Amino acid sequence: MTHAEKSYPLNEAKPYPYEQWWIAAYSQEVGRSLIQRTILDRPVVLYRTEEGDPVALAGLCPHRLYPLVKSRLQGDSIQCGYHGFTFDKSGRCVHIPSQDKVPPRFGVRNYPVVERGGLIWLWTGKESGADPNLLPDLEAMGLGNPDWSVEQHPMTTFNARYQLLIDNLVDLSHVSFIHSNSIPGGGAVVNIPYEIVDTNKSLNVRRLGRDLPCNPLMKFLFPHHEGSVDQNFDAEFFGPNLIRTGGNISASGKSTNADSKSLGITNFIHGITPETPTTVHYYVVTARNFRLYDPAIEAANLSMGLKIQPEDIAALEAIELSVDRFADTRRELSCMADAGAILVRKRLAAQIRREVNEEQTQAAQGALAT
Amino acid sequence: MTHAEKSYPLNEAKPYPYEQWWIAAYSQEVGRSLIQRTILDRPVVLYRTEEGDPVALAGLCPHRLYPLVKSRLQGDSIQCGYHGFTFDKSGRCVHIPSQDKVPPRFGVRNYPVVERGGLIWLWTGKESGADPNLLPDLEAMGLGNPDWSVEQHPMTTFNARYQLLIDNLVDLSHVSFIHSNSIPGGGAVVNIPYEIVDTNKSLNVRRLGRDLPCNPLMKFLFPHHEGSVDQNFDAEFFGPNLIRTGGNISASGKSTNADSKSLGITNFIHGITPETPTTVHYYVVTARNFRLYDPAIEAANLSMGLKIQPEDIAALEAIELSVDRFADTRRELSCMADAGAILVRKRLAAQIRREVNEEQTQAAQGALAT
Amino acid sequence: MTHAEKSYPLNEAKPYPYEQWWIAAYSQEVGRSLIQRTILDRPVVLYRTEEGDPVALAGLCPHRLYPLVKSRLQGDSIQCGYHGFTFDKSGRCVHIPSQDKVPPRFGVRNYPVVERGGLIWLWTGKESGADPNLLPDLEAMGLGNPDWSVEQHPMTTFNARYQLLIDNLVDLSHVSFIHSNSIPGGGAVVNIPYEIVDTNKSLNVRRLGRDLPCNPLMKFLFPHHEGSVDQNFDAEFFGPNLIRTGGNISASGKSTNADSKSLGITNFIHGITPETPTTVHYYVVTARNFRLYDPAIEAANLSMGLKIQPEDIAALEAIELSVDRFADTRRELSCMADAGAILVRKRLAAQIRREVNEEQTQAAQGALAT
Repeated sequence: MTHAEKSYPLNEAKPYPYEQWWIAAYSQEVGRSLIQRTILDRPVVLYRTEEGDPVALAGLCPHRLYPLVKSRLQGDSIQCGYHGFTFDKSGRCVHIPSQDKVPPRFGVRNYPVVERGGLIWLWTGKESGADPNLLPDLEAMGLGNPDWSVEQHPMTTFNARYQLLIDNLVDLSHVSFIHSNSIPGGGAVVNIPYEIVDTNKSLNVRRLGRDLPCNPLMKFLFPHHEGSVDQNFDAEFFGPNLIRTGGNISASGKSTNADSKSLGITNFIHGITPETPTTVHYYVVTARNFRLYDPAIEAANLSMGLKIQPEDIAALEAIELSVDRFADTRRELSCMADAGAILVRKRLAAQIRREVNEEQTQAAQGALAT
Repeated sequence: MTHAEKSYPLNEAKPYPYEQWWIAAYSQEVGRSLIQRTILDRPVVLYRTEEGDPVALAGLCPHRLYPLVKSRLQGDSIQCGYHGFTFDKSGRCVHIPSQDKVPPRFGVRNYPVVERGGLIWLWTGKESGADPNLLPDLEAMGLGNPDWSVEQHPMTTFNARYQLLIDNLVDLSHVSFIHSNSIPGGGAVVNIPYEIVDTNKSLNVRRLGRDLPCNPLMKFLFPHHEGSVDQNFDAEFFGPNLIRTGGNISASGKSTNADSKSLGITNFIHGITPETPTTVHYYVVTARNFRLYDPAIEAANLSMGLKIQPEDIAALEAIELSVDRFADTRRELSCMADAGAILVRKRLAAQIRREVNEEQTQAAQGALAT
Repeated sequence: MTHAEKSYPLNEAKPYPYEQWWIAAYSQEVGRSLIQRTILDRPVVLYRTEEGDPVALAGLCPHRLYPLVKSRLQGDSIQCGYHGFTFDKSGRCVHIPSQDKVPPRFGVRNYPVVERGGLIWLWTGKESGADPNLLPDLEAMGLGNPDWSVEQHPMTTFNARYQLLIDNLVDLSHVSFIHSNSIPGGGAVVNIPYEIVDTNKSLNVRRLGRDLPCNPLMKFLFPHHEGSVDQNFDAEFFGPNLIRTGGNISASGKSTNADSKSLGITNFIHGITPETPTTVHYYVVTARNFRLYDPAIEAANLSMGLKIQPEDIAALEAIELSVDRFADTRRELSCMADAGAILVRKRLAAQIRREVNEEQTQAAQGALAT
């Protein structure tokens, strides 16, 4: 059971789905100073109102395409730094110097945003579809949940198409090779069989390592535990915007299933936001439900991130160069270990295709109506 | 009265007019060492003859496309630094090593040049059209005029299409925003009404600020003056090659028109020379008809330029990136304040269109004659 | 006799011949650490087996296009650093984690290599054609020959199409201009007439300078010689992969032909390996048959290389920029001195054309057979 798959991108004209929530920023990145972030190839300017609500507007002044980030926040409005055009928090243009009336078409797009789990989420699709219920269950994985502790790792933007990052995360066998020196016990992952669990809300490529030796990291996390552990290496795809890895750790032999006799859960929550067709913003949050607020663990997690993420990024930037240069002449080959990653690709491709079909249907209906 | 204009460039195949004088260099940049400057996408090599006359030749040896700037000046001729082909000041090839005869087609193009106002002007069109009378009246604005003092600010090349620099200069309302910290009194400009004066030789977008407070800059320039001033913020377009800003400053209330009871005139002369379709050489000269040769004013003007020009350049390079990325999907929106800038754009577009039409007519006549 | 030639590339779709040996590396560059070199736009990974034999494999893992150079050498095999796919020295995939069978199509291409003259040679064409007899006679020019001393100058990769380097080397008149300060006596070269000698195995553009003054370099090499010298400035093209320059030096007047009464031979052996259509790997080896193992000469040769090569590279990178920007609108002009270079170009163009024709013939036969 091997597959030959067409290399990325799945759809050159439309490399990402738009009817989707994406992480625009960590909550604390956004305040009373303007910041710009490019999301799905669109510059977006982010700030908070005086009341503290996050706002996301299209990042270019429609007059002369000046970046609004180089502008001034006046109350809840932005005054363009080039000629003084002013936009309120809804994106409406409320002032044009040297004329009394402001034609409505001078407004800039306002993007729906919600703040949840310490993250600012932005909706890139049609406004009517911006339903917060479409977000993954962040509380369950430890975000915005008082029973959990989290560390937000610095956001990194790197030079690879976002699909390569999804590939990377969904097939955790890479841990045994790329991270063999940075993740204690990681060498075992490749040899743990996986099962694919479709939870309807997610697709979990689940590995349960049984009777693993209590490596130095486990000893550090659970100093009172002796003996081997059963450790989950989940790779749970919630959509192109978020993947959870890691999972439950139990005392070995005492558990009949992964969730019983848990020592604790460590989740790695990976936020994926395409910046352009070939670059990606990468957010990583570690979350655990044990030894909350312990500064030693916090420091250890952040420092482990500083080793792991550059390893992935170096690999993915190298592959991006290969894909970019050889996509026309090379086809990837896939193997049995890729079954999960391929299911995820198909799901993503289907999501993009659905949007394309819908646009075509609407265009056709529009044509009929005329 | 608002307009939706197609974004730049106006004409992709021909982004600039060629039947035009352009500033190639400040006079003192050109001497007995070869320098190269790319003008309208053509490399040009510049030097002076032993008698001191400026010479401009096409910058690549026709043999193997070696840049002539990496060559040797021998008397008034250039000997190519790769294989020794030698060109006289008219561009004629006068020596090819290891052969006796030099076929005439080995010559390089000689560009007409004139030196005026401390500037080397170069004509990019047909040689027959190179009429120095087509230059703007430089003496009137203070260049090459013994009754004026000038400061030449260092030439800067930056990453924006030259039309964006024209836009910037013709709409001085930007002074109130981009230069609010670097030009004393600049905050007032956006609120001064403007009129458009077509002088036949130029298009002047003229603002006369009346009863302006005597800000620190005015006090510095005119220490004996007390009370408010009437200050001109002209933006006078002489062609895509040169724009004059600034103008007359008078004692307030005592003047019935802008030119009477003048305290002095300060002109900012902006030389604009496209380097490539998306980069531009920018020459700035300040000129005044009062307190000539005063080193304190000279220093103040040069130092103000070191603040103002980087502000404009940062804005225009940011807009260039936006135009480059979003030109296909975005249309600029224009407002009443843009009337001057839009007239200038139309004038420039018409100038380019005339050249295209003329070329087509000549091509058609050539076809008929065959 | 002048020619107007179409600028490079000769054939855009196929800028280089593939049925050809190319230098992949100096022998001592390749060992038990993986190195990557891109050759004719294909990444290649190089290493030695435990027995010391050089191996060249396609540089990307076929699974996810990860660069094999970032992988691990296990015995004579490479284990991919991303997911552990393992390839033996023949390129066969011998292990895929989490599955028992390895489909044969997972292999990577093995490139024929031979090691000769202190160089690793790699064949980019069909395996059946990889005949070491097609290599130039390296021993005759001093490589791998115990009667000669050699210096390998550091390999340099620079930004110019390889054809420009061939042009440069075949017309040594450039020595009188580009290297006038770095090669003692070089100023004379342009005035020495040349003859073109077709040796069947090579095309030698041969200059014999007679009665040249014994310049400081000659005095240094041959301290016991007094009086003038006869010096060969050969430029012998063996193929797009290798050009020899320099040659015999004799005591003047005593020789009736170049080879008699020789003081010694100094060859400059130039290895040319296209990296991409517009970049090239450049290997230089100096070889002499006198004063073997003399450290003073070795140091002098290496230090001369450090002056000469940057001069050529700066020239060729400048020309590459010109060719890249102006290839559409400019045609090179050639002169009598270019006769040798033009013969070489024609030979290279014919070699590429032969391959294209052969491919078309095979494609047509394949179509008939179906």
